[in-house]
Amino acid sequence: MSTIKEVAEEAGVSKSTVSRYISQNGYVSEDAREKIKAAIEKLHFSPNVIAQSLKTNRNQLVGLLLPDISNPFFPRLARGAEVFLKEKDYRVMLGNISDSKTLEEEYLKVLLQNRAAGIITTHDFTKDHPEIDIPVVVVDRVDKDSRYGVFSDSQEGGRLAAEVIWKAGTNRVLLIRGPLDQADNINERFKASLQFLKSKKVDVRICDSSSFDFDQIQAEARRNLDWFVGIDSIIAPSDIHAIAYIHELHSRGLRIPEDVQIIGYDDILMSQFIYPSLSTIHQASYRMGHYAAELVYKIANHLPVEEERIKLPVHYVERETIRRNI
Amino acid sequence: MSTIKEVAEEAGVSKSTVSRYISQNGYVSEDAREKIKAAIEKLHFSPNVIAQSLKTNRNQLVGLLLPDISNPFFPRLARGAEVFLKEKDYRVMLGNISDSKTLEEEYLKVLLQNRAAGIITTHDFTKDHPEIDIPVVVVDRVDKDSRYGVFSDSQEGGRLAAEVIWKAGTNRVLLIRGPLDQADNINERFKASLQFLKSKKVDVRICDSSSFDFDQIQAEARRNLDWFVGIDSIIAPSDIHAIAYIHELHSRGLRIPEDVQIIGYDDILMSQFIYPSLSTIHQASYRMGHYAAELVYKIANHLPVEEERIKLPVHYVERETIRRNI
Repeated sequence: MSTIKEVAEEAGVSKSTVSRYISQNGYVSEDAREKIKAAIEKLHFSPNVIAQSLKTNRNQLVGLLLPDISNPFFPRLARGAEVFLKEKDYRVMLGNISDSKTLEEEYLKVLLQNRAAGIITTHDFTKDHPEIDIPVVVVDRVDKDSRYGVFSDSQEGGRLAAEVIWKAGTNRVLLIRGPLDQADNINERFKASLQFLKSKKVDVRICDSSSFDFDQIQAEARRNLDWFVGIDSIIAPSDIHAIAYIHELHSRGLRIPEDVQIIGYDDILMSQFIYPSLSTIHQASYRMGHYAAELVYKIANHLPVEEERIKLPVHYVERETIRRNI
Repeated sequence: MSTIKEVAEEAGVSKSTVSRYISQNGYVSEDAREKIKAAIEKLHFSPNVIAQSLKTNRNQLVGLLLPDISNPFFPRLARGAEVFLKEKDYRVMLGNISDSKTLEEEYLKVLLQNRAAGIITTHDFTKDHPEIDIPVVVVDRVDKDSRYGVFSDSQEGGRLAAEVIWKAGTNRVLLIRGPLDQADNINERFKASLQFLKSKKVDVRICDSSSFDFDQIQAEARRNLDWFVGIDSIIAPSDIHAIAYIHELHSRGLRIPEDVQIIGYDDILMSQFIYPSLSTIHQASYRMGHYAAELVYKIANHLPVEEERIKLPVHYVERETIRRNI
């Protein structure tokens, strides 16, 4: 099991010279070439993986940068992109960015060095990186000035959630604003809910959530249910949030939806299996990934693009956590 | 928004010469250096991302290769690894391999090219790639001859699942064998369950599942519940499988656990929130990731390693899908 380092030592050249020789990228003198070749033969060095890179078409790679794979919304979105791209013979390289700037830079570096054909990302980094000249499609958290994007109708989603709660009847609503990040979709949803409730003169209490991490949300739920008294309805910023609050409501002996009704957001797979099954706003996460992949593919292959920004409709999924009036 | 290509054209040199200049890696003549410098200034070219790579210590990168992020077991494992490595100032690059050989090769290539400090993987590729000389720790699906590994006690888990079913009382069990891949853990669990049930002379029916994909499992569940008549117990190879079967049992009007009892495997977060809440065998997925990260870290930094192969205990989590006798 010999290494590039040993080959370099045997040949009497630097490691980077050996790398350049193997990757056939960069200058290597005729003399060094001969020595490296002899060293590789002597040491039975087999640069499998690196040699592989010469055979595969490196451009058939698409990067997919996601903020958090422990929220099932994103694996579903990833699946949509993977299925489309696999059919087109592209491979997807996934990055779990955890909303970290450093990690994003690291992934971008790797994708560019490997000459990715395009990038799908939840964070629009194109303003920070004008030098990146491969197709970039923003997904889910699309900014107002993102050129290419696939996203849900957040305004309609926020309004709809509030309308469902209001129609079912409420005296006091807890409206939870999701973690605010670079993009506006979560805040847009929140503002649309708030505006609707205010227009109906509903008593609204507001709180902020700082995380999509389940344990952290559970701690928030405990605090908020202690703090906000007389709440009979909750508008959650995600299904994960709703499930954490349901858990906390159960453990306090409160009945759902009789004592407290709750609406989620996303319609993740599990929301239909929890108890009681979760009424929620459906986002087309799979299609979001699928369309974003199609968009990247079209741009990369200079195919006509009809729509640069695709807004997907949302709809209400009625299950068991909302009161039925009458 | 100028590109390396434009810089190269302006300077009258090749793109790869510009790349070598920027990365300070490889030969660039004095003449070309001057021309590139002038072109960069003229075009206001800012090689942010690439320049960044010179500042960061590239060795602070660990690759994490997972088979399927849509099974919540793996995001939880990833979280365990990420939390440990973040504290040590390492970054985690995630690969969703989807059990694809091509994707694995692609990720390995990228990790090696970026001089990763180590790799955590569910598939032991070290035999196929003896040239890889960075630390590799296999996690979950550890082979008999994997050197470094962190895994659950599958034999005990399989036995325990069968014992729980048998103690609760059964006339006919459906034992589902999970998708068989390169490693043995899923088959080991299956064999341990089968052996226990046979030793107790229980009537066992066996079927194979080919996927962890929820839609596919649902289709299998429909087929198998049509085919296997008189089943009063199900041993599922994962919680995802159990949830799909519970859904199908519900839709046939069968009561759980009165008509059919079912036990899962993994204890994913959602298993406590579904209806009825899922009795299952707990695997320490978070700790698995955490320990694997610690192991990679120790090897990479030449710290003493007490245990090269870490076997984690499993235990039964009693909830509502198993009958209570008496």
